[in-house]
Amino acid sequence: GEPLLLIAGPCVIQTEALTLSIAESLAAMSQRLSVPVVFKASFDKANRTSSGAYRGPGQDEGLRILEKVRDATGLPVTTDVHESHQAAAVGQACDVLQVPAFLARQTDLLIACAATGRPVNVKKGQFMAPGDMKHVVGKLVEGGCRDVLLCERGTFFGYGRLVNDFRAIPEMQALGVPVVYDATHSVQEPGGLGGATGGRREMVEPLARAAVAVGVNAVFLETHPNPDDSPSDGPNMVPLDKLPALVERLLAIRQAAGV
Amino acid sequence: GEPLLLIAGPCVIQTEALTLSIAESLAAMSQRLSVPVVFKASFDKANRTSSGAYRGPGQDEGLRILEKVRDATGLPVTTDVHESHQAAAVGQACDVLQVPAFLARQTDLLIACAATGRPVNVKKGQFMAPGDMKHVVGKLVEGGCRDVLLCERGTFFGYGRLVNDFRAIPEMQALGVPVVYDATHSVQEPGGLGGATGGRREMVEPLARAAVAVGVNAVFLETHPNPDDSPSDGPNMVPLDKLPALVERLLAIRQAAGV
Amino acid sequence: GEPLLLIAGPCVIQTEALTLSIAESLAAMSQRLSVPVVFKASFDKANRTSSGAYRGPGQDEGLRILEKVRDATGLPVTTDVHESHQAAAVGQACDVLQVPAFLARQTDLLIACAATGRPVNVKKGQFMAPGDMKHVVGKLVEGGCRDVLLCERGTFFGYGRLVNDFRAIPEMQALGVPVVYDATHSVQEPGGLGGATGGRREMVEPLARAAVAVGVNAVFLETHPNPDDSPSDGPNMVPLDKLPALVERLLAIRQAAGV
Amino acid sequence: GEPLLLIAGPCVIQTEALTLSIAESLAAMSQRLSVPVVFKASFDKANRTSSGAYRGPGQDEGLRILEKVRDATGLPVTTDVHESHQAAAVGQACDVLQVPAFLARQTDLLIACAATGRPVNVKKGQFMAPGDMKHVVGKLVEGGCRDVLLCERGTFFGYGRLVNDFRAIPEMQALGVPVVYDATHSVQEPGGLGGATGGRREMVEPLARAAVAVGVNAVFLETHPNPDDSPSDGPNMVPLDKLPALVERLLAIRQAAGV
Repeated sequence: GEPLLLIAGPCVIQTEALTLSIAESLAAMSQRLSVPVVFKASFDKANRTSSGAYRGPGQDEGLRILEKVRDATGLPVTTDVHESHQAAAVGQACDVLQVPAFLARQTDLLIACAATGRPVNVKKGQFMAPGDMKHVVGKLVEGGCRDVLLCERGTFFGYGRLVNDFRAIPEMQALGVPVVYDATHSVQEPGGLGGATGGRREMVEPLARAAVAVGVNAVFLETHPNPDDSPSDGPNMVPLDKLPALVERLLAIRQAAGV
Repeated sequence: GEPLLLIAGPCVIQTEALTLSIAESLAAMSQRLSVPVVFKASFDKANRTSSGAYRGPGQDEGLRILEKVRDATGLPVTTDVHESHQAAAVGQACDVLQVPAFLARQTDLLIACAATGRPVNVKKGQFMAPGDMKHVVGKLVEGGCRDVLLCERGTFFGYGRLVNDFRAIPEMQALGVPVVYDATHSVQEPGGLGGATGGRREMVEPLARAAVAVGVNAVFLETHPNPDDSPSDGPNMVPLDKLPALVERLLAIRQAAGV
Repeated sequence: GEPLLLIAGPCVIQTEALTLSIAESLAAMSQRLSVPVVFKASFDKANRTSSGAYRGPGQDEGLRILEKVRDATGLPVTTDVHESHQAAAVGQACDVLQVPAFLARQTDLLIACAATGRPVNVKKGQFMAPGDMKHVVGKLVEGGCRDVLLCERGTFFGYGRLVNDFRAIPEMQALGVPVVYDATHSVQEPGGLGGATGGRREMVEPLARAAVAVGVNAVFLETHPNPDDSPSDGPNMVPLDKLPALVERLLAIRQAAGV
Repeated sequence: GEPLLLIAGPCVIQTEALTLSIAESLAAMSQRLSVPVVFKASFDKANRTSSGAYRGPGQDEGLRILEKVRDATGLPVTTDVHESHQAAAVGQACDVLQVPAFLARQTDLLIACAATGRPVNVKKGQFMAPGDMKHVVGKLVEGGCRDVLLCERGTFFGYGRLVNDFRAIPEMQALGVPVVYDATHSVQEPGGLGGATGGRREMVEPLARAAVAVGVNAVFLETHPNPDDSPSDGPNMVPLDKLPALVERLLAIRQAAGV
């Protein structure tokens, strides 16, 4: 079958040097384990819980750094877009566009992403059934997108908690598209830390193993050399030096699952 | 105490004539029942389930019609904004801005709405706890908004279903802002009709009665002379000729509840 | 229309003297407000969170005290049954039998309750849709019960939290039976206090007001002269001296709602 | 590590001949794959949705057949108990007692099961958090049980639907007990077929794979030579001739997961 795809990176771009350093580690791992990697980092976290939180370097500087990552490492790069007017510039700089879960139903944003000609990875809204994503696929395809990916990142399960319904993986694959499992945001606890979003890092690996055993096509994992220093999503990130062992485990499970 | 506020209108603007006719009925009811009414209609339904669905007349034509409604009837008007760049123009034409539930956490959109100087009514995300709305209030206040309203319109309760947790009314009022109950969208059944959103009109009145008995400050209701002809939300709209009796009932309950 | 019925009492029987004293207060209120009251107290809390918690005086002593309450006050009495073998004795001593929510689908228990010839009040399971209760009604009617009541007491809404879907009231009434609203257990927070169940007393009144505005037939409220001394459900009980004002409010709302 | 345990059988006992025939197939598979198997079948389905549904042969006849299964095949046997008075007899006939999810909090039933001296497998209530099961373990241990097992079989996720929160597996294992994954009842759709419970057989294997990848200790699967002929749970059973391939897959995943 197809190899497992890994989408990984540090959530938000902090400095150019740190971003490049993480990307180089990921590129080395990609080579050593023969696993394709797409590098992901955000230039602007537009929906942080609180207005005082760090948002990132902004669009121009962020896209410049992502292009530098691609040039330096050879890894394809992806980032998320939040308003329609951002799509064209992101499509020029990045190999894949990502649409956040809260925005999965914003028609104009989907159409603008489709118009770039790039693959578009849409996270299933926390408020949507897997089958509802067929309308998202429909809007993208009508807009000219030829490579749609859908992403499971958790569904609302009572205030401050998400759950992965792993039936979503085969159900969204049945729409004819590859499915990504976002192991980092699935273990978020929205609002769980008062003015920030909490999380449970120790659940990332068991749930990623589950997603791979079910047959997911790609896994998205945020990683950082020192997660507790990350300005966003630190509580649910995998430390960079623990990532290769985790990925090797996932590759073994994929083979055993016969996917 | 304060009088109950009613926000009402036909969901989406179809024609100028129909929009004016509905507004005139609402203005007459406002006078007769001494209930303040804000007229609401959308110029663009940007997150319809399917891409083929009717979206509205667009921003320029829509805002022109809303201004005409205000001139003709004296009712204040409101509409919803979906991207930051729309806020300024909507703020010029309308008395109140409304932020959709899916977008309740988009910082840039909230800031742009606050910058208009108008009151801003934000619907609680279907994926949010009532208490999480304190960050929404915080972002608006920091952005200069002096009149924040929050709106309960249902919380995700399993695929294709919403539930009103009526504890949300006192919990959001405890943030120091008035709370609106959206009786129309609370009875939506997202994705319930395949490529459209279903709903249960017969539940609008019981749930609106409940919200008023709990002590909500305002009720939002979509209405149409012939709901089955509405291009959006027809299944959960109140027929225009049934609205006055419903409002009278709500006023009586508010008085009995001693709110 | 029919008067609102009140089911009230102290959750679990502590002493005979305290039980009688509460019942006398309720009987006086029943007379003064012309509201029919059924007295409820448990003789055995068979599903406490922890095994060390107080369970009650047991069946024989508990039923003796309930009969004394009826003799002394003239109020009809009700209590809950947990296993089939208890039904006959409870049916001899009590006017109404109550089936706990966790046990709503236990066929033998329902049949044994029906066989007593008494009215049976079944709480909707926290894991059931309102419409699923039609099978509960069916089992009771086949078993010979001629007075079925159903009770809304909250539905699972994420770990440690319940929500009232108030659509359940008309939906269960549509099965042809009166519906009770349990305002005390609806505000439970199961497991919320570690080894006990927490709750939010301040939400009892707003939610009871909502249920009455929707049109419920009866309200169930636990009450105690000093809730913080109650061995069970203290956090969600109404203080006995606050109950009459609350009931008067509910009666006014019922009249305004035109139910 | 420990081998994966399989608990399997035909849901409810139909005839002695059919029960024995299924057990012999399972015993042969147990030998061939070196996987320990416990045979499970119910003698009385006491909480069927409708009262007209087939419930089983009853306690005496059912236990006689289960003992015969053990004698004929050498497999240990298990069945479920619904009221305290059944525990002693079941404990005499069976190697393991099973407590249904609806009854997970019934203290008397747990104590009666513990008193048999047999291992007790309690299904987590659909209305309980994984951590709440610590009180269940506590009640059993206080009652003298030395082998507690806990079982994940789905949590309420909106009317008529369950979801597996796979974090429950490590969370319940952290209570110091082995955890079973019930792949059959997790895919139930309660009330989904009107007067019966529906299900989705095609989801049994992906979800069982996920549970094993996460590190569950045992898998419970209902099986039948012709599931569509089963009087209960047919829609979510695995055909008996498909079971060995599924189990081999699970064993491979367990090894790859390094559990």
